[in-house]
Amino acid sequence: MTLNLAVLLEESAKAHADKPALLLGEHRMAYAELRGAAKKFAGALEALGVEPGEKVAMMVPNVPQFAVAYYGILNRGAVVVPLNVLLKEDEIAYHLEDSDARALVVWEGFLEEAHKGFEKAAGCRELIVVEAPGGNGARDGMRGFAALLSEHPPEYELYQPMPDDTAVILYTSGTTGRPKGAELTHFNLFYNASYSADRLMDVTEDDVVIGALPLFHVFGQTCVMNTMLYKGGTIALIPRFEPDAALKTIQDARVTIFMGVPTMYQYLMRHPELESFDTSSLRLGISGGSAMPVEVLRAFEEKFGVTILEGYGLSETSPVASFNRSAEVRKAGSIGLPIWGTEVRVVDGNDREVPRGERGELVIRGHNVMKGYYKRPEATAEAMRNGWFHTGDVATQDEDGFLYIVDRVKDMILRGGYNIYPREVEEVLYQHPAVAECAVIGVPHEELGEEVRAVVALKPGESATEEEIISFVKDRVAAYKYPRSVVFMDELPKTATGKILKRELVPNREETKA
Amino acid sequence: MTLNLAVLLEESAKAHADKPALLLGEHRMAYAELRGAAKKFAGALEALGVEPGEKVAMMVPNVPQFAVAYYGILNRGAVVVPLNVLLKEDEIAYHLEDSDARALVVWEGFLEEAHKGFEKAAGCRELIVVEAPGGNGARDGMRGFAALLSEHPPEYELYQPMPDDTAVILYTSGTTGRPKGAELTHFNLFYNASYSADRLMDVTEDDVVIGALPLFHVFGQTCVMNTMLYKGGTIALIPRFEPDAALKTIQDARVTIFMGVPTMYQYLMRHPELESFDTSSLRLGISGGSAMPVEVLRAFEEKFGVTILEGYGLSETSPVASFNRSAEVRKAGSIGLPIWGTEVRVVDGNDREVPRGERGELVIRGHNVMKGYYKRPEATAEAMRNGWFHTGDVATQDEDGFLYIVDRVKDMILRGGYNIYPREVEEVLYQHPAVAECAVIGVPHEELGEEVRAVVALKPGESATEEEIISFVKDRVAAYKYPRSVVFMDELPKTATGKILKRELVPNREETKA
Repeated sequence: MTLNLAVLLEESAKAHADKPALLLGEHRMAYAELRGAAKKFAGALEALGVEPGEKVAMMVPNVPQFAVAYYGILNRGAVVVPLNVLLKEDEIAYHLEDSDARALVVWEGFLEEAHKGFEKAAGCRELIVVEAPGGNGARDGMRGFAALLSEHPPEYELYQPMPDDTAVILYTSGTTGRPKGAELTHFNLFYNASYSADRLMDVTEDDVVIGALPLFHVFGQTCVMNTMLYKGGTIALIPRFEPDAALKTIQDARVTIFMGVPTMYQYLMRHPELESFDTSSLRLGISGGSAMPVEVLRAFEEKFGVTILEGYGLSETSPVASFNRSAEVRKAGSIGLPIWGTEVRVVDGNDREVPRGERGELVIRGHNVMKGYYKRPEATAEAMRNGWFHTGDVATQDEDGFLYIVDRVKDMILRGGYNIYPREVEEVLYQHPAVAECAVIGVPHEELGEEVRAVVALKPGESATEEEIISFVKDRVAAYKYPRSVVFMDELPKTATGKILKRELVPNREETKA
Repeated sequence: MTLNLAVLLEESAKAHADKPALLLGEHRMAYAELRGAAKKFAGALEALGVEPGEKVAMMVPNVPQFAVAYYGILNRGAVVVPLNVLLKEDEIAYHLEDSDARALVVWEGFLEEAHKGFEKAAGCRELIVVEAPGGNGARDGMRGFAALLSEHPPEYELYQPMPDDTAVILYTSGTTGRPKGAELTHFNLFYNASYSADRLMDVTEDDVVIGALPLFHVFGQTCVMNTMLYKGGTIALIPRFEPDAALKTIQDARVTIFMGVPTMYQYLMRHPELESFDTSSLRLGISGGSAMPVEVLRAFEEKFGVTILEGYGLSETSPVASFNRSAEVRKAGSIGLPIWGTEVRVVDGNDREVPRGERGELVIRGHNVMKGYYKRPEATAEAMRNGWFHTGDVATQDEDGFLYIVDRVKDMILRGGYNIYPREVEEVLYQHPAVAECAVIGVPHEELGEEVRAVVALKPGESATEEEIISFVKDRVAAYKYPRSVVFMDELPKTATGKILKRELVPNREETKA
């Protein structure tokens, strides 16, 4: 009858009480300790008047308190609203109001912006400060996280929600408009994590995963945190991804699984002193968030002697929606097969399935799809047309059912009546020996509507001219597809999870034709 | 967002299209065929005006059409109401009305009673006859199952219910009153079956299980049918348990898993020509439904060279609630540990937890507990007091958490102020070499309130007197517990699943003191 996502911590704390659940540098938090701290926080929330079903927002980086607060909120039966830690004042106020958050748990390092946002947000009653080492802690009118924990016992009766009740609201910009909160249920998140652990990734209690993906994001939250804690494994946290820290953590914590987005893999490979780290404990890489160029995948596997399994998903799908189960059955460049119990289709603009091999929008239905966008019946209806969740991704499916993401619907370039999928051109650019990062975008053009531009960051010490890059691509793709201009940058702008932010590269309308 | 229990057949039909899902004698039904037939039936139900959420009852024994109808109803999004095939006219009418069944699917062999019950049941519009070989099929005003299938295509879009929607209503007498319908959700049943397969029984697609437990009962439905079809294994059906047919099926179908209630194990062992059957394919026994006497377990394991894993559950718990995971960690006589993600307590009459080792009622909460009794808010509230499902079973829990069922609350004998748990005395009786079956019951007694009586069936060719039996027990238990009278029978009355029907042994109130 009932299912609380936090039951995974209950069970692991029973089976592995003294095993380390979380590592952060020298700090080690055992399962029993994590469970007890979460229970204390649940008691604190109850004492503060937070009722089951009410929302509690969090702005906490990858520190042990993230897990304490997350499972504490769930123990209380409240709904977790994890926010991007880089949000600014007005954004914070918007998220708190939109989600009806009653309390905000914030890491002291982000307190300045958070406090301003909190002051502007009607209805958010409590600001709880997670004390940073060497900081000043909570000020007047705020609560200190450590003090709250110290006032409550390490036992709290797990609230018993129904499986279809909302556990977490994850904000996502979706394809258009202001950020919307995807409501994920206890069942959504529990089944996605347990299924991934048991049947996709073959995680065991002996695994140590690197906690480099932000836990406020769905990829880190499900695949790193919930999956590993479900299995009784260990998470070696790094608060902010940085190649040096990542390699040191892999070495010191004997990390067995690296989970990351493709740019993280690239950063590791490009580290100038890579050979000086002992990375021999690694056995598996899990990649998602965006497509990994085939060249990068092969180079990393060879260099580190691991298998990389690629998956695909979104905030709205808990997230895992498709996966390459093993090195034996995977197809390079593919995001794999839909996971068990879910269905996918590739459809045209009228939601009709297109023939295998043709391009169309990827739509999904099944146990991993969100309940809807919080308080957004119209956006929900639009995204869930005909009962299928519309991903906004352009995909193809081959005769064996393997899926390939061609691009984002909104990233597609329309040049003189031809559709151009930037991803395809980017794959060619990555084959150029001097290219470290790239993005292909459309820029306004009077006659053609849009023209193709490449934005490129070169590898340190390498050089290439605009003409060389253009001619390299021109030799390899159809004439309408190659970039007519190249812009060089030192580094491409990225989201918190390391996805390249194409929107920031697209020139304003004022700029005349390229 | 959505979960339909029938998704397990969808997935297995994709992965194992041509593998046999069901065997019945010479007949073999492959996964693709089963899926197609279920889809045809879903189309037929829609054409007959059955809407999603409406109820469809079934009185079908262990034949392939049971699975066709079951998954067909689920494909349509309707609710399956499996009835005991031995019900009589008035009982049938009661179940059809109580469940608001719109249609009844009945095996031709039970048509006479079913038709009379159907005529009496208001609101049940369609009688669908599953044709038995050599029968006459549907008569006027009825529908023929085969004819319905032939009119519809083998494709039907799986209805998308929410995980918390009701999938199946199972009737159970509970502890008191008329039979009540336990509402089990798609999530309840899906997770119980998939968890049992993946993490308790280690079932593989190469396993062949005997389909001797009635599929209308929760044990057969989840553990035999849903579990095996989820894994892509094969079910060798026998329409009615009979030791000769069971042994022949084990031999011919190369059965690897025997699932049954303890009496079935006893029947197999006692078969006079046991040695003439090849049972070497068996690797595992799963026992449930009632406690297996330790003597029986050990003897069977030795004779058949298998491991028997015992579990415990009820209709209201989907059913698996506790299990002995492996021969290494099990404890003989115990029903094992609560399954992952569920909680159990042993409580007194005021719902206070009793100290470990003491007796009390077993209560359960978690993902396996039913939504409630259909249209019975009071019975539901009574059974779910304080959020825990009250099993009506008396249990103890040892220091390692292993559970022991001592008895049913209602079977407990109260003799002169002492509680006597019949199960304990029965265990002693089973140690007597001449005893084949036994039950210990309370009979009215003027001074003591109740007195202890043993009802015994002796093994063929064995003999024992009342005095011998009494003194055998008297030597082994406390003085207040041993039976003061013994009644001999050729065979004890049993339920359809082989449980001994104690209620039929208890003498009427008119009978004076024993």
